[in-house]
Amino acid sequence: MRAATAIDVHAFSRQPRPLMLACLEFSDTGGLAGHSDADVAAHAAADALLIASGIGELGTVFGTDREEWAGASGSVLLGEAVRLVSEAGWQIENISIQIIGQKPRFAPRRLEAQETMSSIVGAPVLLSATTTDHLGALGRVEGIAALATALLTD
Amino acid sequence: MRAATAIDVHAFSRQPRPLMLACLEFSDTGGLAGHSDADVAAHAAADALLIASGIGELGTVFGTDREEWAGASGSVLLGEAVRLVSEAGWQIENISIQIIGQKPRFAPRRLEAQETMSSIVGAPVLLSATTTDHLGALGRVEGIAALATALLTD
Amino acid sequence: MRAATAIDVHAFSRQPRPLMLACLEFSDTGGLAGHSDADVAAHAAADALLIASGIGELGTVFGTDREEWAGASGSVLLGEAVRLVSEAGWQIENISIQIIGQKPRFAPRRLEAQETMSSIVGAPVLLSATTTDHLGALGRVEGIAALATALLTD
Repeated sequence: MRAATAIDVHAFSRQPRPLMLACLEFSDTGGLAGHSDADVAAHAAADALLIASGIGELGTVFGTDREEWAGASGSVLLGEAVRLVSEAGWQIENISIQIIGQKPRFAPRRLEAQETMSSIVGAPVLLSATTTDHLGALGRVEGIAALATALLTD
Repeated sequence: MRAATAIDVHAFSRQPRPLMLACLEFSDTGGLAGHSDADVAAHAAADALLIASGIGELGTVFGTDREEWAGASGSVLLGEAVRLVSEAGWQIENISIQIIGQKPRFAPRRLEAQETMSSIVGAPVLLSATTTDHLGALGRVEGIAALATALLTD
Repeated sequence: MRAATAIDVHAFSRQPRPLMLACLEFSDTGGLAGHSDADVAAHAAADALLIASGIGELGTVFGTDREEWAGASGSVLLGEAVRLVSEAGWQIENISIQIIGQKPRFAPRRLEAQETMSSIVGAPVLLSATTTDHLGALGRVEGIAALATALLTD
């Protein structure tokens, strides 16, 4: 059995851009900056899977120097992480993901995001969201973080 | 088996108020702001339980629109989360909670808090505390965070 | 089975000092401040082990008032935490550690750090690194954090 916890943080983009979060598009908030779609929830989940399995980490496996993953969506990266982890003989017990930020209002779409991500992962992905009570950079709406824990068995 | 990690953050209140933390009252520091008692340790633990079990999340289950939980203490919310999780057929293996902030001095009351919370949960609740080495909003004593991981079996 | 998550944060030192991180020395960045070698990765891992096992927490077990540990390296503290946890009858399934900060560039030495720490722990230690996308105190290169999750069985 293996457990790993990973955080991912992205700053809001100054350019108009859709917000991709937990494999959904949110129209009530500007998007996050990044050479990918900057989906912190999908990235944190993929990272926790890659770390727990010992395969590596997000930056190494899908990094900026890997042309084939440039611009790939969070869904695609998460799906590929699941494929690699399964191929290595691991079974995913669950992933928990907590989104940390003042925006967007996540609760109304929590179950939709949970179903979408669970379907990509093929195991329970449990989503939640919280704020920093207006403290720090996340509290000043400079970005969004996601905190993921993955539990695997072999 | 299921694992989930959750953080809770509250800012210090400008009004004089007791500090409730890990189901104890601390008299050497002002209290945290919130419509509840703002016990970040109890909230993070309850949230981790609700997320891991798939029941939901703190804000949805005990949110500001749920009149019956308005003003409920961290102890009461944690007890209710435990009841819901048990009722859903889960057994709590343990919860770890790390309090993150410059204040209060937690170490002298760590074991007392651990016993109090373990007794509410009916399983080992393992408490610790650390600082951010004076960095960021928590380092400027603007608030306190708690980071909880819950492990469940069915 | 037990799981615990712990974070450790240290500010960069104003004095010239080697950076000790994940039981390695990094020459491309100044060191972190602390009465110990301020190895946040080793400290977070040791803390997660001590918390999960119920033995205590880093500050209490190796705290500033314990003369015999003054100035001890992260490797030594981690080794001692492993010894205490094993002596108490726990088996370490794995530890995940994510280093959070803009510096140093960790990826080129990730596998070396992973081997070094796994050899100290006698179980898989899985290392990764991320940035806060230049947000907050860690984004301004004021310090480095490490987030560790330990999984134990008895």
